Amino acid sequence: MGNRICEILEIQTPIISGGMVWCSGWELASAVSNEGGLGLIGAGSMTPEILVEHIHKCRKATTNTFGVNIPLMNPNSPKHIDIVIQEKIPVVFTSAGNPATYTQRLKQAGIKVVHVIANEKFARKAQEAGVDAVVAEGFEAGGHNGKEETTTLVLVDQIVKALDIPVIAAGGIASGEQWLAMNALGAEGVQIGSLFASSNESSAHENFKKAVIDAREGDTLLFFRKLSPTRLLKGGFFNKIQEAESRGASKEELLEIIGVGRSRKGIFEGDLEEGELEIGQVSSLINNELSVKEIFIKLKQEYTSAKQRLTNIQ
Amino acid sequence: MGNRICEILEIQTPIISGGMVWCSGWELASAVSNEGGLGLIGAGSMTPEILVEHIHKCRKATTNTFGVNIPLMNPNSPKHIDIVIQEKIPVVFTSAGNPATYTQRLKQAGIKVVHVIANEKFARKAQEAGVDAVVAEGFEAGGHNGKEETTTLVLVDQIVKALDIPVIAAGGIASGEQWLAMNALGAEGVQIGSLFASSNESSAHENFKKAVIDAREGDTLLFFRKLSPTRLLKGGFFNKIQEAESRGASKEELLEIIGVGRSRKGIFEGDLEEGELEIGQVSSLINNELSVKEIFIKLKQEYTSAKQRLTNIQ
Repeated sequence: MGNRICEILEIQTPIISGGMVWCSGWELASAVSNEGGLGLIGAGSMTPEILVEHIHKCRKATTNTFGVNIPLMNPNSPKHIDIVIQEKIPVVFTSAGNPATYTQRLKQAGIKVVHVIANEKFARKAQEAGVDAVVAEGFEAGGHNGKEETTTLVLVDQIVKALDIPVIAAGGIASGEQWLAMNALGAEGVQIGSLFASSNESSAHENFKKAVIDAREGDTLLFFRKLSPTRLLKGGFFNKIQEAESRGASKEELLEIIGVGRSRKGIFEGDLEEGELEIGQVSSLINNELSVKEIFIKLKQEYTSAKQRLTNIQ
Repeated sequence: MGNRICEILEIQTPIISGGMVWCSGWELASAVSNEGGLGLIGAGSMTPEILVEHIHKCRKATTNTFGVNIPLMNPNSPKHIDIVIQEKIPVVFTSAGNPATYTQRLKQAGIKVVHVIANEKFARKAQEAGVDAVVAEGFEAGGHNGKEETTTLVLVDQIVKALDIPVIAAGGIASGEQWLAMNALGAEGVQIGSLFASSNESSAHENFKKAVIDAREGDTLLFFRKLSPTRLLKGGFFNKIQEAESRGASKEELLEIIGVGRSRKGIFEGDLEEGELEIGQVSSLINNELSVKEIFIKLKQEYTSAKQRLTNIQ
């Protein structure tokens, strides 16, 4: 029995590194693709010029397939779309926006399109728009998140049963056992964020990586339910937002507290007090900074032994 | 390879029905035990006299093992503990309290003890207190919930790796695929709430069961983060609390809005406006009122075919 995700994306191992702002540059993407997974360049934190530079560097660093993730709410997204078409990027992941906007144009350019969803309504919209697969991303995920707060365990079960196209699970996955659990639900691949965000090849600041590795249970929570739900890691900004939301701060006040450039400050510049630290709940399970090669070895070993154990259960 | 949960609890199938307030009477518990799972009587909504009555009726309805769930924060819990010892109940699940308080006394009476936890700290405490197993219950679960908001996917992976004693997964489980996913994580059993709460044999009101079956994604959310986090289903009370929390209501005001007897009103009397509707996120996946027998058939069929599919993946 083939794995449709591997066939569609032309990869060996159905592990995808999330296209994370300030983490997913050419270095991380090419390392993941070189291990046989799909590395994604995260366009969300890049100007068009920087994106082109990362694509060119990634192409020099790997001969394997890699892709670009484009958050559609980003004001640069129309230019990012032009770039991936010009550059003949084989796979594009779109997120945070309407899947109908660009899917047909990308498909006509011969690009495989995968859209990130957090509920069944958008999953069906994406399938109707003609995408090749969806990423079903649960409440555990870092950064922007669905309003329904549906967890990966519930969401993936639901989306696999609702759609005909293949499903990639995301949110809360950092071990081979969790990867196997997603396959048990019928997902055909996993998109992993936090574990790659804290890897050697991530372009995040060392302070940020250390904070992710130090994180314990309960150290990430979801905020900004009045704006756009976002999962943050503990720190100065987390505390400020928690206090403001606890006293019922309005949308306007929250927007003022956020200001601009917070995620760059936190993730790329390593300012744990003033920066916005976007990371997944699963960071509590990450206890070492690993290379991408070590991550692939770990995930495959855990997957294999968990599967062996599961096969032996009646 | 044996399943330690089946051995410890002396059951055939490692499926446990949660001891849910106003749902888990003798009828539900005995039906689950008759199918080879472990039925739990939920003492949380029972006076000592009512608990004794349910135990006696359950014993008449099944010759298989059944248990009692005792939430330790309940003022009746010392009497409930006396009763399960007098009645020689073979298995007791304790929750919402310190596992050290009664575990040794119950063990000395020959009772198997399982404690419900939502974080690693309490899981380790429970193991040290000498419990036979833990239930690791994630953010998806209905009713009272952990402050860390750790989902079942992340929690179960963490707890299985942290403990030596066996782990039962709970929260977000209503399909055989989800049961298999929990086994993939190394859990040796599943505790299922919402699906049994909406079953024919549940003592909940038909209005409540219908509301659970009608629930769609996003229809349950976690509230009362300032008091004790609790997952509720949409309805009049949900709206009232959502409004109050959005404007930053204090603990005192929230306590006043809650008042007393809300969960009885909602779950047992079927008042969807004034009642507190405690149910899990997975209710979005439940679309029919089934009998306990039908639930076991469905779960086993789904589990078997998901396992077959998973075994065929490389």
